[in-house]
Amino acid sequence: MIIVMQPGAGEAEIQAVEAKILAHGLSVHVSRGTERTLIGAVGDERVLDPEMFDPMPGVEKSMHIVKQYKIVAREWHRENTVIDVAGVPIGGPTVQVIGGPCSVETPAQMSAAAVGVKTAGARLMRGGAFKPRTSPYAFQGKGVEGLELLRSAADTQGLPIVTELMDARMLETFLKYDVDAIQIGTRNMQNFDLLKEVGRVNKPVILKRGMSATINEWLMAAEYIAIGGNHDIIFCERGIRTFETAYRNVLDVTAVPVLKRETHLPVIVDPSHAGGKAWMVPALSCAAVAAGADGLLVEVHPNPCDAWCDADQALTPSEFAVLIGQLRAVARAIGRDL
Amino acid sequence: MIIVMQPGAGEAEIQAVEAKILAHGLSVHVSRGTERTLIGAVGDERVLDPEMFDPMPGVEKSMHIVKQYKIVAREWHRENTVIDVAGVPIGGPTVQVIGGPCSVETPAQMSAAAVGVKTAGARLMRGGAFKPRTSPYAFQGKGVEGLELLRSAADTQGLPIVTELMDARMLETFLKYDVDAIQIGTRNMQNFDLLKEVGRVNKPVILKRGMSATINEWLMAAEYIAIGGNHDIIFCERGIRTFETAYRNVLDVTAVPVLKRETHLPVIVDPSHAGGKAWMVPALSCAAVAAGADGLLVEVHPNPCDAWCDADQALTPSEFAVLIGQLRAVARAIGRDL
Amino acid sequence: MIIVMQPGAGEAEIQAVEAKILAHGLSVHVSRGTERTLIGAVGDERVLDPEMFDPMPGVEKSMHIVKQYKIVAREWHRENTVIDVAGVPIGGPTVQVIGGPCSVETPAQMSAAAVGVKTAGARLMRGGAFKPRTSPYAFQGKGVEGLELLRSAADTQGLPIVTELMDARMLETFLKYDVDAIQIGTRNMQNFDLLKEVGRVNKPVILKRGMSATINEWLMAAEYIAIGGNHDIIFCERGIRTFETAYRNVLDVTAVPVLKRETHLPVIVDPSHAGGKAWMVPALSCAAVAAGADGLLVEVHPNPCDAWCDADQALTPSEFAVLIGQLRAVARAIGRDL
Amino acid sequence: MIIVMQPGAGEAEIQAVEAKILAHGLSVHVSRGTERTLIGAVGDERVLDPEMFDPMPGVEKSMHIVKQYKIVAREWHRENTVIDVAGVPIGGPTVQVIGGPCSVETPAQMSAAAVGVKTAGARLMRGGAFKPRTSPYAFQGKGVEGLELLRSAADTQGLPIVTELMDARMLETFLKYDVDAIQIGTRNMQNFDLLKEVGRVNKPVILKRGMSATINEWLMAAEYIAIGGNHDIIFCERGIRTFETAYRNVLDVTAVPVLKRETHLPVIVDPSHAGGKAWMVPALSCAAVAAGADGLLVEVHPNPCDAWCDADQALTPSEFAVLIGQLRAVARAIGRDL
Repeated sequence: MIIVMQPGAGEAEIQAVEAKILAHGLSVHVSRGTERTLIGAVGDERVLDPEMFDPMPGVEKSMHIVKQYKIVAREWHRENTVIDVAGVPIGGPTVQVIGGPCSVETPAQMSAAAVGVKTAGARLMRGGAFKPRTSPYAFQGKGVEGLELLRSAADTQGLPIVTELMDARMLETFLKYDVDAIQIGTRNMQNFDLLKEVGRVNKPVILKRGMSATINEWLMAAEYIAIGGNHDIIFCERGIRTFETAYRNVLDVTAVPVLKRETHLPVIVDPSHAGGKAWMVPALSCAAVAAGADGLLVEVHPNPCDAWCDADQALTPSEFAVLIGQLRAVARAIGRDL
Repeated sequence: MIIVMQPGAGEAEIQAVEAKILAHGLSVHVSRGTERTLIGAVGDERVLDPEMFDPMPGVEKSMHIVKQYKIVAREWHRENTVIDVAGVPIGGPTVQVIGGPCSVETPAQMSAAAVGVKTAGARLMRGGAFKPRTSPYAFQGKGVEGLELLRSAADTQGLPIVTELMDARMLETFLKYDVDAIQIGTRNMQNFDLLKEVGRVNKPVILKRGMSATINEWLMAAEYIAIGGNHDIIFCERGIRTFETAYRNVLDVTAVPVLKRETHLPVIVDPSHAGGKAWMVPALSCAAVAAGADGLLVEVHPNPCDAWCDADQALTPSEFAVLIGQLRAVARAIGRDL
Repeated sequence: MIIVMQPGAGEAEIQAVEAKILAHGLSVHVSRGTERTLIGAVGDERVLDPEMFDPMPGVEKSMHIVKQYKIVAREWHRENTVIDVAGVPIGGPTVQVIGGPCSVETPAQMSAAAVGVKTAGARLMRGGAFKPRTSPYAFQGKGVEGLELLRSAADTQGLPIVTELMDARMLETFLKYDVDAIQIGTRNMQNFDLLKEVGRVNKPVILKRGMSATINEWLMAAEYIAIGGNHDIIFCERGIRTFETAYRNVLDVTAVPVLKRETHLPVIVDPSHAGGKAWMVPALSCAAVAAGADGLLVEVHPNPCDAWCDADQALTPSEFAVLIGQLRAVARAIGRDL
Repeated sequence: MIIVMQPGAGEAEIQAVEAKILAHGLSVHVSRGTERTLIGAVGDERVLDPEMFDPMPGVEKSMHIVKQYKIVAREWHRENTVIDVAGVPIGGPTVQVIGGPCSVETPAQMSAAAVGVKTAGARLMRGGAFKPRTSPYAFQGKGVEGLELLRSAADTQGLPIVTELMDARMLETFLKYDVDAIQIGTRNMQNFDLLKEVGRVNKPVILKRGMSATINEWLMAAEYIAIGGNHDIIFCERGIRTFETAYRNVLDVTAVPVLKRETHLPVIVDPSHAGGKAWMVPALSCAAVAAGADGLLVEVHPNPCDAWCDADQALTPSEFAVLIGQLRAVARAIGRDL
């Protein structure tokens, strides 16, 4: 950490900063410039925080030099981590696609969706049983019954399942239905108690980015899971909130190469929530794969117009099959497969 | 709701939209313009959603005309609601100030803070026992022991207490310690399961705005609490996330008059988290009161430099006392008191 | 345009709105719902504006139904427009790459850059002679001498040139040096007097998106150029400003398919300014082409470390040549060429 | 400036950085930490830029320690600067209000506006002759005729005038009509050629903040004016662009105390453009004055409903007179006058 002193800072103020650094077990390095004195704290910065120094007399500002995350950082684990989701490897040379409806509705809908997902060539199935909706008057998901329907529809096609956990009290039930990858949604990216709970289980976690979470906050959220012992974390970019109103969110495609550089963990993309319209999904999916994403999370519904939730962003099974073909060509163009 | 058809939309497409509206129990009103046909759905719009119509053939876009919140809306409840927090009225002519440290640390710290808050003239006390921190390596709060310390320090001064609930499983404990107002933090504004839980109890809730929540989403989050039966909800603006990096957040002072127009519930402001620096707190506090806020949530610590959390934004008790004097003058200038 | 009346709006208020619509030459259509009365203005909406109605008594809000741009809109011109930049077609099946340094520095630098750009297979050359820099103490560009150097270096390789115009008073000089495509930079996207000037000449214009311009504002800026008679406009997405600080801008890849749907004009992408780091350029370039961009604007410098401007985002000629190969593979994967 | 080396950076890489610093005339200070080596550049940082070092092998990142602006910085000029606008002091103990219509329309409108502004007690008059409009189909201002109308209406009441300059070619005309303070609008905050031009004249400049300009960029834009010799610069906060759609912009009230700390120059606020609705203006105006603004720029129109531009945000003269009274009370509450 570096502490920048104000232009007129006196010796007593400098010494007070030094004393605080030493008291935390780090050593001190002072550099006197023409306009400012800088004080460096040498040692494990993670025990320090800018707010410890900023309010001290004579301090202008202070800043971390080293990143605060460690277990998830590529700096400490050079090779890519490949995560096994019930036999499907995520983070390796093959790009994986997870398909399925926004929400679980009926046995017939789930059965048709599972067939569509499998036939198109995707290897995992998604479906929401618990739905975080902006309005309390909107459909809130089928709950446990939805888990059952998802599990049984996916089982008939041999597809592992991915579904969102919103409440720590439901975790036992998720384990009972053997959910293969637990999704933590955008609105819960910084629900730290929930992160700690999924950090204690032995199931892959798909961690969606918060609506306006920085890359650093997202990595720190993953670190919350990792320190509990669960290192099987998959990042999922799903669009960020900006000033633009022409589409639901802005897919932050830059996050893909940046995360791949910062962490050894896999990175996937949800093009359906990013754009919010089915017609945008092919272009965004191709862009994500071209940018280096390890997988995609795509909404597929046997009859989008009648979907109970996010009807405007789901692909039909046949559109999905066409897309898988395009994505395979793009993946091969950049030296991967799908 | 209005559905705007594409320029070339045909009769069959228009009739399909009409049929869907009728199927939901509303009636239909068609308007044929020179460039577009518009279809109005007349009746209770809350059962409809744009995503039901947007994917239909021939539809360009659809939009709500009526707001989706009802219990919290001023449209349905004209007079201001005044909420009684253990004898202190919030939302009436008197502006209320809630003071106290970011986090509960020690008995001595809490005792000094309580005396400072009371002496300055504030009427409620805050203090965090459970802390949502970006880093898992940062101090996470004293937990239940912190609740105890807050309760007993505040009781010696006769101050009602406000503290943050992060996990529904801890609600019983909050009731046991008789927390007078339960704070839902920024990161949990859309933790819908938590909102539903506090909607079932009989305690005022302070609902902080999400980091990048729109006014509409915030009102809908309050509606989640209200439909459970708990209408004692206080909105708390605490700064939003923008592109600006010179300060932690941007205090959205416009949210105060806008919320006061949209809802009958009280609106308070947290100037400490908004700016992130103690020296900004007086200016932001005066601005908030001048804009019409019903109260403030201000961080006060007996010794800010040694605070375990957010040390750079707390006022000392004597700074706080000076501020209260300034705020009283501003409140009187706009015809209120404090 | 639709005007939504407040719940309690009376007949006199409704009639005043009707009168104002009629006075502007449109006809009126009234729809009385259960909660609100809606008034539709039927005719050419472009003469109306929400602000004409919003302040009237009894009006809740009003909104356009039809888009305000016309010449640039695909609605009025179905087929793609292909723009000829000195013999190079932009907007057709072939993706075009424009390469060159951020700023023109020396004859040797420009000569090496031109060779690199040509050798790699790009078909147009860029180079900044007038540089918009945040700091007045930073290098401001070589000015007219820079135009000369760019023109002569590009001519030796038979490459058309693209360079930024910042000031209308310099337009004559641009025409004298026969700049093949005039770039309007991010900071001037809404410099309306400048837009009007380039709207009067007969040269293709590359219109970069403003730092936080909405898609609608961007299209309206193009309409400013188009109404002057110059319809040869190429949109260039270059990253938008958001809350994220880990990279300079967020490349808004969604803008590509959205613009391609809204306008018949070509859309290119500047991956260099978007990410701000050379190592991000390949991933972002591949993503842009995969999303459907008609071209790229890439910074190439013979010796990036010594560049006088934006040294951290330029590729070397050999990196650029490798990238062109990757991009060709991606273009072919989606059925185009490069 | 500090250059942070990557963990594995070797001696040759460190020496290359040192050599580059020395070559620019600064001296070097190296600090070897446990995880990173830091290299400090000691001397006048303004000649260095992070982009000079970031692309060098072994460099992780580099950053300025000292602010890049100098003439406008309070660090170099401790006391408040009070600017004399034709006899009216801005930046002193008295808060000044500038009132008038968004755009100049007719002699009758201007005459009524001038009387209203004067009667209410404001001391300067505004009015737009050249209007930057998002749509080319909207009213673009009366141009030079508008300047004449503004000048003569204001003269009858003895009010200095403020109006926006959009194009450097019109500067001579502004001087001819003796515009008392030249406004640079939001869209031109980084029109650097225009800034340089107004930096050469001897007239106060009101520099509005760009739609999404950071505080640093805004100060640097002022520095562009200042290095030309014109130090009479007044900052005007007018709301920033965020994700929120419930109002036009978010008034960034925090910018007021932050700018007052960073610069010695006056800071005023435009509450009319910030909120975009007349009913928000009083609350935002009171907040701005309470936060420490040195003045306000308020839209006043004799008949807002019929205004040719921004009709929804202007106050009537009588509303304006009431507001002035409220503002005076708030100003006195914080120890100023108005």
